Formats: sequence, structure tokens, C-alpha cells
Amino acid sequence: MSLPYTTSQDKVPFFLMAGSCAIESKDLAYEIAERIKQITDSMGIPFIFKGSYRKANRTKIDSFTGIGDILALEILKEVGQHFQVPTVTDIHESAEAAMAAPYVDVLQIPAFLCRQTDLLAAAAQTGRAVNIKKGQFMSGASMKFAVEKVKHENPEALVYLTDRGNSFGYGDLVVDFRNLPEMAAFQVPVIMDCTHSLQRPNQGSGITGGQPALIETIAKAAIAVGADGLFIETHPNPSIAKSDGANMLPLDQLEGLLEKLMKIREAIL
Amino acid sequence: MSLPYTTSQDKVPFFLMAGSCAIESKDLAYEIAERIKQITDSMGIPFIFKGSYRKANRTKIDSFTGIGDILALEILKEVGQHFQVPTVTDIHESAEAAMAAPYVDVLQIPAFLCRQTDLLAAAAQTGRAVNIKKGQFMSGASMKFAVEKVKHENPEALVYLTDRGNSFGYGDLVVDFRNLPEMAAFQVPVIMDCTHSLQRPNQGSGITGGQPALIETIAKAAIAVGADGLFIETHPNPSIAKSDGANMLPLDQLEGLLEKLMKIREAIL
Amino acid sequence: MSLPYTTSQDKVPFFLMAGSCAIESKDLAYEIAERIKQITDSMGIPFIFKGSYRKANRTKIDSFTGIGDILALEILKEVGQHFQVPTVTDIHESAEAAMAAPYVDVLQIPAFLCRQTDLLAAAAQTGRAVNIKKGQFMSGASMKFAVEKVKHENPEALVYLTDRGNSFGYGDLVVDFRNLPEMAAFQVPVIMDCTHSLQRPNQGSGITGGQPALIETIAKAAIAVGADGLFIETHPNPSIAKSDGANMLPLDQLEGLLEKLMKIREAIL
Amino acid sequence: MSLPYTTSQDKVPFFLMAGSCAIESKDLAYEIAERIKQITDSMGIPFIFKGSYRKANRTKIDSFTGIGDILALEILKEVGQHFQVPTVTDIHESAEAAMAAPYVDVLQIPAFLCRQTDLLAAAAQTGRAVNIKKGQFMSGASMKFAVEKVKHENPEALVYLTDRGNSFGYGDLVVDFRNLPEMAAFQVPVIMDCTHSLQRPNQGSGITGGQPALIETIAKAAIAVGADGLFIETHPNPSIAKSDGANMLPLDQLEGLLEKLMKIREAIL
Repeated sequence: MSLPYTTSQDKVPFFLMAGSCAIESKDLAYEIAERIKQITDSMGIPFIFKGSYRKANRTKIDSFTGIGDILALEILKEVGQHFQVPTVTDIHESAEAAMAAPYVDVLQIPAFLCRQTDLLAAAAQTGRAVNIKKGQFMSGASMKFAVEKVKHENPEALVYLTDRGNSFGYGDLVVDFRNLPEMAAFQVPVIMDCTHSLQRPNQGSGITGGQPALIETIAKAAIAVGADGLFIETHPNPSIAKSDGANMLPLDQLEGLLEKLMKIREAIL
Repeated sequence: MSLPYTTSQDKVPFFLMAGSCAIESKDLAYEIAERIKQITDSMGIPFIFKGSYRKANRTKIDSFTGIGDILALEILKEVGQHFQVPTVTDIHESAEAAMAAPYVDVLQIPAFLCRQTDLLAAAAQTGRAVNIKKGQFMSGASMKFAVEKVKHENPEALVYLTDRGNSFGYGDLVVDFRNLPEMAAFQVPVIMDCTHSLQRPNQGSGITGGQPALIETIAKAAIAVGADGLFIETHPNPSIAKSDGANMLPLDQLEGLLEKLMKIREAIL
Repeated sequence: MSLPYTTSQDKVPFFLMAGSCAIESKDLAYEIAERIKQITDSMGIPFIFKGSYRKANRTKIDSFTGIGDILALEILKEVGQHFQVPTVTDIHESAEAAMAAPYVDVLQIPAFLCRQTDLLAAAAQTGRAVNIKKGQFMSGASMKFAVEKVKHENPEALVYLTDRGNSFGYGDLVVDFRNLPEMAAFQVPVIMDCTHSLQRPNQGSGITGGQPALIETIAKAAIAVGADGLFIETHPNPSIAKSDGANMLPLDQLEGLLEKLMKIREAIL
Repeated sequence: MSLPYTTSQDKVPFFLMAGSCAIESKDLAYEIAERIKQITDSMGIPFIFKGSYRKANRTKIDSFTGIGDILALEILKEVGQHFQVPTVTDIHESAEAAMAAPYVDVLQIPAFLCRQTDLLAAAAQTGRAVNIKKGQFMSGASMKFAVEKVKHENPEALVYLTDRGNSFGYGDLVVDFRNLPEMAAFQVPVIMDCTHSLQRPNQGSGITGGQPALIETIAKAAIAVGADGLFIETHPNPSIAKSDGANMLPLDQLEGLLEKLMKIREAIL
């Protein structure tokens, strides 16, 4: 599947990496992908469907972690083929790179794992594109070394860098928009994750909180400063989502949000 | 002089609060005011001229602090009258409110002092508009109490709130753009200070550093998320400015920057 | 009154700066001073009585701010004379330095105001000792410049530096114990404020929160790394204190705490 | 090998987890272990020898990562048997748990990986003790869930929790000593990592910096607030160490440091 953009640039529309958090079922994945595809097609926005086959770093041991890796990966592949969209999923250990690569177009490195050399190398070796999330403890400038780890294994690799905020005390994250131009300087497309950057970590309950009312604020600022893409998790009914429900955008708000963002994008082209 | 906006709103152009940092001389003040006035008039951007008559919290005892309070205030007044622009200056102790009020249209409360009840009250009592800078240690939401302190003394007071970043470790500030909508919810115009939010405090040298290449990034994000105004310090030659030179925008870059920002503003109206 | 220590040193017992937050009444001030004096005399710990005549930076406009400046200052003076202990109070604008100096032995500069050159100079000019609280936005190393501002006005001034934590996100402070040796390097006694360093600022309610159960943790670490003095606010019944009740040590726990701390102090002498 | 302490307690001497960072050679490992063993035996301090068989998250792709996993693990085992000391090494992916377990007594979970459920579970399943480093983005209180993940797989598992500081801006870490009593409340031994908590991450050079002069400050504070153990990396000549040299304690300073710390420990027993 053809992927949007190979370097950071501001001469084209931004692209959207979106989907539910975890793959919960085929029906739900199709419902979400179909609706996003309709919206993005009508607006000329390139779309990459995102779904996790496993949640590997939930706060609590008894949180939902998935429906089974291969089952979820097959749903991802079917979504990609049925809707003709590229897909992305996150991997957590190096052995998962080869497992997941046949099913998706982009392998995503979670933020906590962005310094794990073996994982970056394994992802690179598959030949897939690699989307590296910037750790909550990392500067944008330091992500240069993560890009180099991937390129070292596969100089042709398409690498994306995604910001999802930085630790700001224990219970909050802050998005430092200086990181977007810093990361774009490495000649890779840069993405703003408007979902996880609004998490409220380290809650006493063991359930990460969120602030979905601020998704629009984060997204607008990202587009204005030149993000090449946005990462948004969305769900027809976030209150029943099995993970990250506190931060998801209700699916029926996506179109209105993208319309506002496209106007800003056009203003900076 | 008529001041722009009495509440936060997104149906009009943003306004610009700009000038040099300290008033260094009448010639320089006129040069800067004249150029900004030309630019903003041609673009329909309301303009408030800013100048400090005294720098009261320089890091080091031997830093430049001013040319004399009354001398500087008279220059501010002349600039206002000559160019027909409202003016703003910062005050540091409550007795300065009555001293400075006859010369300017807006009294500004420095960020470190935004919780000093006596200072806020004294500013309110003059009847002048009050621009409160958010402390580097304050959330946007907590600025509600600062607004209330002013309104308690003068319920008719026009209050502005300005963000200039939050402490992020010792040597850096981060701008949390969530604060702009949070502060706008108090029904006051909100301003992004694109100069001081890029300071690098706590440098071993005792000279605060900066990152002027990122002014555009901060300004664009601010406009995109709905800032009513921008605060920018500018100088024909920042390298010889007597304070804050490390963060100032070269005056000849102002017009190009504002043109980009106006496009973003129009995209969100 | 003779003040403890003129430079940072580890060959003597630590000293205690303690009292209520605000001076609420003469009876309460005497009750607290008497009890602390008994305890510290029996343990050979030098004691400085602390009381505020005015609270100038309460979060909310309707918070308690004092019983009247001169009335409170006279109580402070009487406490000093009656119990033969030096006293300390905080000032907020430069004009207060001359007002407060005749009543106390030490003038304290609040943390938010630690960069206000005029205030530091005015305190220095009184000839009183000056206790500068490190701003929540300051490194220990940067306090060198605050010390220099005082010494510039009065080279003989006795200066204390007090740490009270650094901003850590919006709703929390963290104590960075690296700051104590950094500040001691300026040849001034360094103090750990075990009360305000446990504040929880920026609460939605406008009432700063606290964690008094952790006072012992902060105090023990401070003594172990060589603090010359401790600052502790205490009250017979913190739940009815008119300010900072959320962080005060119950007066009847002071003796037990000091006993533990003295053992650690002796271990490092 | 018998391990020190199964719960957090203050009635016994602290224990020491120490060694070089990476296993560079058998000779060096023996030299370091022998010297530490002499010192700790003479002082009655339980000792666990630490060595990494692989550095998996170096900043740069061309940094030293190890001499070979099994070769290094065999050296670790020989050190344990020769000096009769328990040993600890860190693992990075779940498959490494079973690989490393036969060679060491404690499996250590790196800070970046402390939320990876599979890794914690795999470590637990080996029956080895598990030392979990608190992530730079985690509160002490949130480590409860990490302990639960291990105990869920192996209710009998001996779990240690180690603090190594929290992100404080991009280029610095701060140690929040409130976390030690918070983690001790989970009834596990708590350890202060005096080496990595002084790192300076996100350096432009890609080489993490350090502040070894402050090791004593961090260690003293930790002992004073009740740490059960200390983690210290040491090297006969830190300037030639192949990783983390910027933060290591010169081996010839270890004895003097421990003597000071033992006095503080005795003062709080």
C-alpha cells in the first residue's frame, strides 16, 4: 500500500493515522475504518488505519490486553485490503517485528521503547516503514539517534517520528511544540499524537485519565507549526472502549475537526 | 486610547502587543513604534506599544535596569500620543501603579508577581487595563484567582492574561497551549508572549538565554488555538539590545511573520 | 539577638526556624514560641521564631491576610524579648523593609520575589540578616546572584538561603536535594523549608494542599545532606490555622521529630 | 545465594547492589567484585554484585553494547560462585528472562521497561528475585501496579523497587525522595540508584552526562529516609569505562562513602 510522504514537507495536505486503540473485533474495526475512509477520501487526506493487536504496557495486570495477536493482525490485514488503506500496528519486543510485518504497512515503536536498539533494528529489518513515538522522557532533538538506529539497519527505511507529549510532574503530560520542527529537521515526516499526549498518567486508580476536550487544541497547534500527520484514536462510543477510552475522539466529531484543521493547513501551505 | 477587545473572542483579527524590552532612548522607541505602526496599520492589526521603564528582576545586580523611571514613562506617553497607539508598561510594587498609570493605557503585572495581591489591587485601582502575565509556576486555570483579585478592586477593569511558559527543569521553559483556552474561559482576552516563553533561565553565566528561531513556531501555535493577541519584543538589532536580546525578533522579520500569522487567524475565524 | 551561623558549616547542631505561618494572636504566638523554646533549649538547638505579619500572595482574594501589620510586628518583637529568641518575618515590597526591620532580627524574602532587586536591596540596607527563599523556578546555583544583590548593598549582611522545592508540573513541588550543597558553596547557611516544599499548588479550589506526613522525610534528607537549618511551621491544631494549615506540623510532634533529626545530624558531624 | 531482605525494614544495615555497568572482562569483574566484597564484609553490609551482559538502550547505535550475552553471563555466575555473593543483571525482552535466570540471583527490569507486562511476567516466572527500576516517568505510588504484575505470576517472588530519578526537563533528572516511603509501603525493599539518578540525558552529543560529585548527596539522603539498599556503579577508572563512565564512583572512594552512610543508617535504626 502506498504510504504518505517520505520526508517532512509542507506542500501537501497533512495525513491521518487513525483508528481505535486495540482491535476489539472485526465489526468494530470495519465500522471505524469505513467511516474514516469516507471522511478522508472526501477531503483528500491520506489515511493510515491504526490498530493494536496487543496492549503490552497497561498500568494494571487485569486490564484488557487483546483478542489474540494473530486474530487481531488478520483483521488489520483485511481492513487494509478491503478499504485499500495502509495500516499500522505497534510492536513491543523484537520477535514481534517479523510476526507483525506481513500484516501491516507500518510498524510502530511505543514511546516507552523508543530507545530499545534491538526493537528498532528488528523493525527496520522487516523493510516496513517504522513510526517511532518519542518517549515521554525524550527531547525532539534526541530522536535523531533513534532514526539513525533504524537507518543503520535499513538505509532505505521510511521513518516517521511521532510526538505524544513529555512528562510534566507525575500526573500530567505537556506537548512541547518546539519538538515538531526539531524532528522535521531530520528529514522525516513528523506526526502529532493528539490522543496519548492528553493522557493523565500515574493515577491512583491505575486507570490513565484524559482530556478529550483538548484534542482540537493540540491538533490545531500541531498543524499550524507544520506537522505532516496527525495520530488520533477514535471510537463510535469512547465510554465503552476497552482501552484509552478516556482520551478518544468520538467518531462523529472527526469530520468537523478535520475540516477546521484543513483550513489551517491550507493557510500555511 | 482605545484598547482592543474586552473579552476573549475569535471573530476579529488578533492584536499585537510589541515593542522593545526596556525603553533605551526616545529615538529607538520612536523607530520601533513607527515601523510596527506602519506594518500593523497596513494589515488591520490593532497594536499596543510596549516598553519597560525599569527592569526589576534582572538575574545579576550589574545588569542594565533603565534610563530613569519618569524619563522612560514620558517617552512611552509621547509614543502613544505621537503614533496614536495605546501603550503598556510593567510595574513591580504597588506604589508604582499610581506613578505609571498617567503615562500608559495598560499596566502589566510581571509573571513572578502574578500572585501579589497588593500589586494587583493597586493596578486595578488606577482604572487602567491590567495585563497579568501567568507565572512560570502557575496553571492557566489558577489564573482565575488573579483575575478575581483585580475585579474585586475594580469590577469594570479590563483584564488581559498572558502566557509566557512554565518552568521545565531549571534551564528551560515549555509553553503548554492548553492554558490558552483555559484562560479564555474566564472571558478575558488571552495573549501569547512569544518572546519570554523562549527564555533559557538559570544559566550559569547569569545571562538568560533564548531561541529566537522558534518565535514563529510559538506564534503560529498560539494563533491556531485562538490567542486573542501576541506579545513580541523586537529590536532593529537584537544583538545590541540592553536586555532580553537573546530572544528578540529582528524588527525586519516582523512583517513577514505577521503575514503568515494572519493567514492562520483567518483560517480559524 | 544573636543569630546562628554566619556561613554554611557542619561542625555544630542545625538550627530551627519555626513558628506559626501568620501571626494570628499574641496568645497563640506565645504558646507556640514557649513550647518550641522549651524543646530546643533542652536539645541545644538554636531557635529563630518565625511569624508573618501579612500574607501577600494568597491564592484567593478572600483568604485571611493578617491582623494588621504593626499589631503583628509588635507581637513578634514581644515574643523575641520575652523568650530571648531572634525572630524572622517576610516582607513583600521594598517599603516594608524599613517598616519591619525594627521589630525583627531577620527579614525574609518570599520565594516568588527572590529575583526582585529592589526588595533584596531594601532588606540589605536595613542591616538585618536576610533569609532568601529560593524561587520554585530557580536552581540552587542561580541563587548566587540573589546573594550578590544583597551583598552589593551591604557587604556585611548575614544571608541565609532556604529551599522550598521546585515546580513539578502544576499541582506538585519536588525538592531537589542537590540544591543544598550547591547553595552552601556560596558560604551562606542553607535551610530546608519542610513546610512549603510539601505544598500542592494550583488546586482548583484555590486552597493550596499539603502532605504533612512527609515532613519527616524531607527533614531527614535535608539534615543528612548537610542543611544548616530547618524551617518548619507548626501549630497546636493545624486544622484551625488561618493559613497553610494543610502543611503544618502538629506542635506536639515537634520534639519527637527533632530527636530523630539530631541523631542524623550527629552522624554526619 | 541468600538475598538480603524480603520486605522494607529499618532494623538492619542497608545492603549494597554494586558493580560495573557492563561486564567488560572477567578480570575487571573480579577486580571490582573482590574489592567491594572486602569492603562490605568488613562493614557487615550485604552485597549483591551487578553487571550488565548487554546494554540495550544506548543513545547511539555505535555505542558499546557488550562482549556477548552468554560470555558475560558466565562471568557473572563465576563471580557469584567465587566470591559467594548474589548477582543481578538486567533483561530487556521476555525471552531473556529464561536465558539469564540460570546465571544470576536477581533479574532487573530497566526503568524504561517497567510497564512492560510481558517482561515482568517472564521475570517472575523464572522464580528469581526481580528488581524493578522505577521509570523516569513514574510516581512511586504507581509502582504498586508493577509489583502486582510480578506477584500475579509468582506470588512468592521477592521484588525490589529501585528509584533512579524522574525526568526534570529534557537534560536533567531529579530524585524525589517522597518516593522511597511510598514504595516501601508496598512491603518490598526499596533501593536508591545513586548512579543513574545523576544522569544528564538528552545531550546533543548522544553521550549521557553525569554529576559524580553528587553521589554522596543522593546516597546520604536515601539512607536518611530509610532506603533498604543502595545501587552504585563503580569502576577502578571511570574515565575508561565503556558505558556510564560519566556517573560512576571511582572504586577507591567507595569505602569512605560507605563509612559515612553507615553512620547515618545507625542513627535512624
